[in-house]
Amino acid sequence: MRAVDLIEKKRDGGEMTPEEIRWLIQGYVAGRLPDYQMAAFLMAVYFRGMSEQEVVALTQAMVESGARIDLTAIPGIKVDKHSTGGVGDTVTLVLVPLMAAAGLIMAKLSGRALGHTGGTIDKFESIPGVRTELSLAEIVAQAKRIGAVVADHTAELVPADRLLYELRDVTGTVSSLPLIAASVLSKKIAGGADAIILDVKCGDGAFMRTFPEARKLAETLVRVGNRLGKKFAALVTAMDQPLGTLAGNALEVRQAIEVLRGQGPADLREIVLALGAELLVLVGEASSSGEGKERLARLLDTGKAFTKFRELVAAQGGDVRAVEEPERLPKADQIVEVVAPQGGYVQVVRARSIGVACGLLGAGREVKGEKVDPAAGVELLAKVGTQVEKGQPLARLHLGRPDRLPEARRIVTEAFIIGPTPPTPSPLVLDRIV
Amino acid sequence: MRAVDLIEKKRDGGEMTPEEIRWLIQGYVAGRLPDYQMAAFLMAVYFRGMSEQEVVALTQAMVESGARIDLTAIPGIKVDKHSTGGVGDTVTLVLVPLMAAAGLIMAKLSGRALGHTGGTIDKFESIPGVRTELSLAEIVAQAKRIGAVVADHTAELVPADRLLYELRDVTGTVSSLPLIAASVLSKKIAGGADAIILDVKCGDGAFMRTFPEARKLAETLVRVGNRLGKKFAALVTAMDQPLGTLAGNALEVRQAIEVLRGQGPADLREIVLALGAELLVLVGEASSSGEGKERLARLLDTGKAFTKFRELVAAQGGDVRAVEEPERLPKADQIVEVVAPQGGYVQVVRARSIGVACGLLGAGREVKGEKVDPAAGVELLAKVGTQVEKGQPLARLHLGRPDRLPEARRIVTEAFIIGPTPPTPSPLVLDRIV
Repeated sequence: MRAVDLIEKKRDGGEMTPEEIRWLIQGYVAGRLPDYQMAAFLMAVYFRGMSEQEVVALTQAMVESGARIDLTAIPGIKVDKHSTGGVGDTVTLVLVPLMAAAGLIMAKLSGRALGHTGGTIDKFESIPGVRTELSLAEIVAQAKRIGAVVADHTAELVPADRLLYELRDVTGTVSSLPLIAASVLSKKIAGGADAIILDVKCGDGAFMRTFPEARKLAETLVRVGNRLGKKFAALVTAMDQPLGTLAGNALEVRQAIEVLRGQGPADLREIVLALGAELLVLVGEASSSGEGKERLARLLDTGKAFTKFRELVAAQGGDVRAVEEPERLPKADQIVEVVAPQGGYVQVVRARSIGVACGLLGAGREVKGEKVDPAAGVELLAKVGTQVEKGQPLARLHLGRPDRLPEARRIVTEAFIIGPTPPTPSPLVLDRIV
Repeated sequence: MRAVDLIEKKRDGGEMTPEEIRWLIQGYVAGRLPDYQMAAFLMAVYFRGMSEQEVVALTQAMVESGARIDLTAIPGIKVDKHSTGGVGDTVTLVLVPLMAAAGLIMAKLSGRALGHTGGTIDKFESIPGVRTELSLAEIVAQAKRIGAVVADHTAELVPADRLLYELRDVTGTVSSLPLIAASVLSKKIAGGADAIILDVKCGDGAFMRTFPEARKLAETLVRVGNRLGKKFAALVTAMDQPLGTLAGNALEVRQAIEVLRGQGPADLREIVLALGAELLVLVGEASSSGEGKERLARLLDTGKAFTKFRELVAAQGGDVRAVEEPERLPKADQIVEVVAPQGGYVQVVRARSIGVACGLLGAGREVKGEKVDPAAGVELLAKVGTQVEKGQPLARLHLGRPDRLPEARRIVTEAFIIGPTPPTPSPLVLDRIV
């Protein structure tokens, strides 16, 4: 095989065979296929797309490029979850202990903040002492012992995805549905779970801005995922305004703790329950989403999920006192309020802008490897539908980088759109694909 | 500027500014822009195309990447020619001395064989002693002294084209009209001529297989070329069967000498006269194509063009006796005939197949840097329209590599399609764009 022939085949709209796709991926990971040929191939895929069969083959080839987490020796049902990324999306820190409290096993690999979205690993590490760089053996052992793990993506799993993602990031080939699908699915397949719930975010703060795009991605993920021999389901959920009221690292840990204690913002709790209930239905532990939600709500309200969270934090070396008394979590030295320039009802809180502001304040990173400020972030005092008066605080900026205050303040102020009448409420869960 | 933003702009169908294009090309030549980003950009151009304004800017940026041949100090009119490449296309070796015999100055830079098409430089070098690697100063001095030069493309001219071509060759981005146009035009602009005639080949043996494709390329080349401040014209010419009767290196020198002596195959002579006449019209030396052809035909028939060819060969260190007595040119040890499997009229002689056979026999190269066999090639004893009897020789294979004989024989035999009735004659010059 010659790479240029395969590039031209895809360029001209042909369908690659599984052997051809495997040859490309293996060659790339082994360093035989140069970056420039892969870049040309990826751009051809961007324009031509891929058939479902091709995405299946690409995902398999990517999974085969590295190790897999083998949870088969552990009794019980293993579940997993993936979110396409949003702002204030601290669902993982709630869902993992919640599912473990429900008797399932959830060993979740997560990523770090980049661009305008936060990363669960950065959030979890804002708890003093928490260690997220676990070996495969540690992940399996902890999953067996307490049923819950939140660990950093290890280099051993799906090295092809890391290499491809880095290349896509600098070659304008990130926003390609088949490439996104194979990236998501390969990591989930390698993660070793039996059933996986996908949270495909949709809206201003999400990677997929429009509902049709998000729905198409969700459908592709579920269809291809099921062909790969695992149980997949997806919810398309709204990401127009941030989830919950806190965005940042320690701030989102605080918010997760609120929900784990049966409190916290309704929207975050609703998403957690909806995703968790789908998992219970998917594995036959609940006969309906409603039944699943009720069962999980009890685990939140009775503190059982929170107990599991403390176990999780302790298992990974974290200071449990910081979880029991969240005021011990990292705190910003300076907190500045942003006030409403006029009275009325909040129509929109642009999620993307809040994410960008968090990044500016120090909660995110512009380039890989940068340190994040655990205390920085944005606290929302008003969300869509809130009635505010002129001069009333809309948000609090938790400052890590005071030099960025003017820009962050401007962005957050402009993220709020205030109008004279209450906005029409819109649902949080937009679609369900099973 | 960030390369990824420019890649995405082109990917999404945007029009690049001249500054953006210059930044990409300068960065690439300087090694600041990595191959993989250029590869992704080129594939995006493949799909999205380029506006005329973009092709102008790309061509200019490519010209600016290196030196130019400065012929301004030489009195007289400087002309140049480019062919998109065919089989048996030895036009340059006739046209350069012909135009010089007509009193114009033609310093032609040419390339080497690659794939199924031959290269003028390999052909010219089959004359013992001929040196084609001339410095810019040597090119200018020889152009001033005798009005004719045939030299290898120097690395000093348009280095961006060499780098881009190598990358396009391995990334499936060769067959992109704007990239082809900028490649052709940048070399011609840097070549320093006032007027340039383009021979855009069309058909089975050409890069552009169909007339609409070839016409579009010719139009783009002429329009963009004229915007770049030079006089351009183009002929679209047929390349369904090989030009002339000889394909190979020394074989094509022999054929060029025949035409330069007022003999040789009619189709090759016709193309030479048509291209030369367009140049005369373009620079105001003839009032019509017909008048130009007559004048040039006289220069062939009186031996004046051949005298200039001998001067050219001598100026570049070649053995003039090999030109005066072509039997002194390199000859193959073995010559094998291919015979007609049936009687009838030759309907088609597939040019591409003849080119591939020449390559197999040793006249071409599969990868850069390979040595070519000057003696190898194919001699056609029948062309389209020839009536043949079963068993009559159709072609002679001049063997450089006897191990390739069976495959070459099969390919050449299959290149001939023989039918019961004479084929309809079709014109050689299909269109003229001025």
